[in-house]
Amino acid sequence: MKPLLEALNLREVKRPPFWMMRQAGRSLPEYRALRQEAGGFLDLCYNPDFGTEVTLQPLRRFGMDAAILFSDILVIPHALGQELTFEKGEGPKLPPISVEDIEKLSAQKNNIDKKLEPIYQTVRGVKEKLEENQTIIGFCGAPWTVSTYMIEGGSSKNYAKTTSFSLKHQQAYDQLIDLLIETSVHYLSQQIKAGAEAVQIFDSWAAVHSPEQFERCVLKPLLKMAKLLKDKHPEVPIILFPRGIHPHQLEVFAAHNAHFEGLGLDTTIDLAWAHEKLQGKVCIQGNLDPNLLLTTPEIIREKVTKMLEIGHKKPGYIFNLGHGVLPETPMENLEALVETVKNF
Amino acid sequence: MKPLLEALNLREVKRPPFWMMRQAGRSLPEYRALRQEAGGFLDLCYNPDFGTEVTLQPLRRFGMDAAILFSDILVIPHALGQELTFEKGEGPKLPPISVEDIEKLSAQKNNIDKKLEPIYQTVRGVKEKLEENQTIIGFCGAPWTVSTYMIEGGSSKNYAKTTSFSLKHQQAYDQLIDLLIETSVHYLSQQIKAGAEAVQIFDSWAAVHSPEQFERCVLKPLLKMAKLLKDKHPEVPIILFPRGIHPHQLEVFAAHNAHFEGLGLDTTIDLAWAHEKLQGKVCIQGNLDPNLLLTTPEIIREKVTKMLEIGHKKPGYIFNLGHGVLPETPMENLEALVETVKNF
Repeated sequence: MKPLLEALNLREVKRPPFWMMRQAGRSLPEYRALRQEAGGFLDLCYNPDFGTEVTLQPLRRFGMDAAILFSDILVIPHALGQELTFEKGEGPKLPPISVEDIEKLSAQKNNIDKKLEPIYQTVRGVKEKLEENQTIIGFCGAPWTVSTYMIEGGSSKNYAKTTSFSLKHQQAYDQLIDLLIETSVHYLSQQIKAGAEAVQIFDSWAAVHSPEQFERCVLKPLLKMAKLLKDKHPEVPIILFPRGIHPHQLEVFAAHNAHFEGLGLDTTIDLAWAHEKLQGKVCIQGNLDPNLLLTTPEIIREKVTKMLEIGHKKPGYIFNLGHGVLPETPMENLEALVETVKNF
Repeated sequence: MKPLLEALNLREVKRPPFWMMRQAGRSLPEYRALRQEAGGFLDLCYNPDFGTEVTLQPLRRFGMDAAILFSDILVIPHALGQELTFEKGEGPKLPPISVEDIEKLSAQKNNIDKKLEPIYQTVRGVKEKLEENQTIIGFCGAPWTVSTYMIEGGSSKNYAKTTSFSLKHQQAYDQLIDLLIETSVHYLSQQIKAGAEAVQIFDSWAAVHSPEQFERCVLKPLLKMAKLLKDKHPEVPIILFPRGIHPHQLEVFAAHNAHFEGLGLDTTIDLAWAHEKLQGKVCIQGNLDPNLLLTTPEIIREKVTKMLEIGHKKPGYIFNLGHGVLPETPMENLEALVETVKNF
C-alpha cells in the first residue's frame, strides 16, 4: 500500500508521508513561468494539460508522497451556472445569489459534468504519471465554505450575508446546502472513478460560527456528505480540513471516524494534544505554520523535526502545513522542510 | 456601585448590564450625520468635542450601562511617530516598520501624551456627562494585535510578515512588544486618571498562532501588561477580549483572575460552557453574533433571552456581542436587542 494510504489506514510507516497544501502554485518558479504563458485562472482549471503539469510540478521537484489535484473549490457553483471570474490579485468574484436563484441552480445539478469533465481528465493524466508510491488526492470545498462565496459574491470579512441568509431563509439555505452536498459528492465520486485514491474536503471558513450555527452549517452537512460518499466508495479515505475550529469540535469529528479517516489540523492546534486525543481514532495531518517557512532553514529544520517526533510515535500521521504554502516562500526554505522530512 | 462594575466584581445585579462593541459608530444615523461634516477619522479621534459626542450618542439613544471611549487602537504607534492614515473604506495604512525603526520609535516613548492628550480630554468630557449608573470604559489594543499593523503596514490576511519578523528578529520583536506594553499601560493609566472606571484590551488577532507563538506573543505580553496596570490601579477592572482563541486558552486567562476581572467572549464560544467553566472565576462578557442582528426582531429577542437566562444564573455576566456592531445593522433590530435586555 502507498505510504499516504497506509497512514490514513492507521498502519505503521517508515517515515511520515508528506505533502503541502497549495504545493502546486505560485511558490514554484516553474509554476509562475507556465502561468504567465497561460490564460485566466479558471481556464487553467479546465485545461487538463496545464492541470496535469502543475499538479505534478511539486512532486518532480520535491518528491512528495501525494499530489493534490489542481482545481478550485468554486468550480461547483460555476458548473451549476453561477458566473465566476478571478481578477488578478483580487480573488474570486461571483454575482451574489438570492433565494430565487436556488431553484435555477438546482435545475442544473445533473449537468455539472459538462463543465467538470476536464478536471476528471486532469485526475486521469496525473494518475498515469505518478510514481508507484505516490498518491493522488482529489478535493472539493465544504458546503458552508462554498455557500459563503455564492452568497457574499466573493471573499468575506465576517460572513454577515451568509449567516443572516441562513437564519432568515432557513429552508432556502438548507436547500442550497443539500444541493452542494449532492453535487460535491458526485464531483468527488467522479474524481475517484478517474483515479483519485483519497479526497480532502476543505472547510476553510468553518470557524466563524456560534455553536448552534456550527452544528447546522458545518457538522451536519459534512457528516451527511461523508456518509453519502462512503456509501459509494467505502474504500476511499476522506480527509477533512475544518480550518480554525476549536479542539473539542475536532474531537467530535474524530469520534465520527467511520466518516472521516483523516483530520487536517490548522496551525493553532497543539500537535501533542492532537497526538494524544485524536491520532489513532483518525489519522492526523498537519500543521506547520506556513509563516514559519518565511524564516530560515535552521528554524524550519528544528520545528519540523519536533513535529515529526510527535506524530511518528504512533500510526496515523501525515506531515503537512497548517494552511497553504505562501507564494513568497523562499525555495531554500521549502528544500529544508523537504530534506528534514525525507531524512527523518 | 454601578451595575457594570458590580458585574466585574462578581456581585449580584438586578439584570445583566450591557453595552455593545462598536456601539458608537456607523450603525447610528446620528453618527453618520456628524461624521459627514467632520474631517478624517484620525482627526476625529483627536477631537474631544467630537469624541465626547459620539461616545455618548448610543447611550442617549439606547441607555447602555457603559460608554466605550471613541478612539482607535493605532493611536499608540501614531503617538510613537509611525505615520498613520485611514483611507475611506480601506482601513488603516502605515509605512511598515523594520528592525531599524524600533529604536526611533522607542525614543519617543516619553512624548506620547502630546498626541494623546485630546483623548484623555474626551474621557473627561464623557465622564462629566454620564448618568449616575453608567460607566466609562477606556481601551487600547493588545501588543500582538497592534504590532501586526505596525509590521504589515495595515490589515493582513495571514500575519506572515509579523510572525516571520517575530521569529527571525526575536530580540527586536521582544523590544517592540515591551515598548507597546509600556506605552499602552501609560495610555490606559492616563485614561483612568481622566475618569475611565474600567478598561478593555482588544487582542483582535490573538487567534492566528501556533501554541508556542500564542504563549510568546499573546499570553505573556498580556499578563505583563495587566500586572503593570494593576500595580498602578489595583481598583480598576480589566476586561480582556482575545478574539478567536480556543476555549482552553480562555481557561488559562480565567485562572489569572488577579490580572483580568473580565473576559470578552467571541461568537464561537459556547456561553453555557463559559458559564460553567469561566464565570465566577472572572466576569464573562458577550457574545451574541453580530450577524444575527441582520435578521429579524423575533430571532433576536429569542436568542438574547436565552443568553441572558444562562448568564444571569450567577454573578459576573455582562451582555455584549461577540464582535463589533455591523454598520448595516437595522435600527429596529438594535432596538429589539436593547428592549429585551432592559426588560429582562
